[in-house]
Amino acid sequence: MKRSPTAEIISVGNELLIGHTLDTNSHWISKHLTKFGWTLQRITILRDSLESIRHGVSSAIQRKPDLLITLGGLGPTHDDMTLKGVAMALNKTLVLNSEALAMVKARYARMETSVGMTRFRRKMAMLPESAVALPNPVGTAPGVLVKTRRTNVVSLPGVPSEMKSIFMGSVVPMLTVSKGKQPAEITIRLLGIVESALAPALDRTRRAFPGLYFKSHPRGREVGIRTLILLHIYTVNDSRDKIDKAISRLLRELGKGGSDN
Amino acid sequence: MKRSPTAEIISVGNELLIGHTLDTNSHWISKHLTKFGWTLQRITILRDSLESIRHGVSSAIQRKPDLLITLGGLGPTHDDMTLKGVAMALNKTLVLNSEALAMVKARYARMETSVGMTRFRRKMAMLPESAVALPNPVGTAPGVLVKTRRTNVVSLPGVPSEMKSIFMGSVVPMLTVSKGKQPAEITIRLLGIVESALAPALDRTRRAFPGLYFKSHPRGREVGIRTLILLHIYTVNDSRDKIDKAISRLLRELGKGGSDN
Repeated sequence: MKRSPTAEIISVGNELLIGHTLDTNSHWISKHLTKFGWTLQRITILRDSLESIRHGVSSAIQRKPDLLITLGGLGPTHDDMTLKGVAMALNKTLVLNSEALAMVKARYARMETSVGMTRFRRKMAMLPESAVALPNPVGTAPGVLVKTRRTNVVSLPGVPSEMKSIFMGSVVPMLTVSKGKQPAEITIRLLGIVESALAPALDRTRRAFPGLYFKSHPRGREVGIRTLILLHIYTVNDSRDKIDKAISRLLRELGKGGSDN
Repeated sequence: MKRSPTAEIISVGNELLIGHTLDTNSHWISKHLTKFGWTLQRITILRDSLESIRHGVSSAIQRKPDLLITLGGLGPTHDDMTLKGVAMALNKTLVLNSEALAMVKARYARMETSVGMTRFRRKMAMLPESAVALPNPVGTAPGVLVKTRRTNVVSLPGVPSEMKSIFMGSVVPMLTVSKGKQPAEITIRLLGIVESALAPALDRTRRAFPGLYFKSHPRGREVGIRTLILLHIYTVNDSRDKIDKAISRLLRELGKGGSDN
């Protein structure tokens, strides 16, 4: 069975760690990765610290995902240091990328302002050696792709509209090239059972269907007979048909009662 | 100057990595940590994998935060393996905790069900050696505290109502004991300036006020003169008065124009 391709996300920004901003970017990307049959192994949220970013990227690379996406820290200000951290983790230096410079210049050429190319704007075109600039149709800082032997490292801006635009234009084509099977999933509602009573039947069903993932989400109180559990079943490599068989098995197991203790 | 106490969060669950559930728990906790003067260094979201949890907890402990909070994976089902991972990372075994067992029993004693204490329910009272059970007023699985030489490791359920209830009852008292200064923050709106034009003035202001954190959030397009930037300024160790001085300085710098390139 073909292995599902793997990904990690590193999201950078103090605002994500002080309760100022909820990281919805990673969640949005995770949906797309899942849709294309990829397995997202880990999301890491880091502060705007060069050492923290370098360490985070370096550790992720060592886990050898097929794709590593960094989010945020590509802008013109001093605390935008993601590319410096990526370069350090990959033992590369930052160099002026002519393609990226052309993108930034084209953007500012259309601006009604007297300020031209400053070193702050040029900063957005300083990419790791051998990087490819990814067009940003709705903002200034280009996305960045650096290919390593094992992992493609993609850096996207943290502004959601820019991140989404570059992701759809430049990252989705990379996902479909190495696309796995289509995932299948369903959520069923189990009423009047508590999670600990569901556990024995679920355990037996899980053992009988090793390719499926089961996740129970209790809704409402554990005490009282009218509790509700949402049971989410999904698979990356198996079919919807197999999920249906698992549900039948689970319901049979539940009918037997909680005799397994 | 007293160092602000540090924390990390590890949030566990496949549902958080397949785009099924947005991790709002970490965001909620981050607000409280900030309010009490703590610095959240990192959030890591991991799959329901024993090796992944063991590795994640072990790595976090090596970074020596004052507090490590794990979220999720405390329930009765097979894929609830957070405590096993925490125990492995700390070189401990899981043992039946009599205090936790009493909590779980008291919970089920009130239940209208014929099923008594099963091994699935007993599982929720299997804690790392020397752990302290934290009461869960609104659910079954107790929270767990394990003190190590440098880091307090707290494990909370992933169900938001249970997480919040244990956090308010048992974690907040730990935060206030080692409480730092009250943080101060403000967000100002800068209209009609683009981020790259703001950058030089912001850079000089940042250098003049080393204890403050500045984060610019562009809203709207970089092209066109009516752009809006939200500038968030905050500090853990300095005063609101210092922030006001920094804003005055920034506005003076902006008045000088973008001559620094």
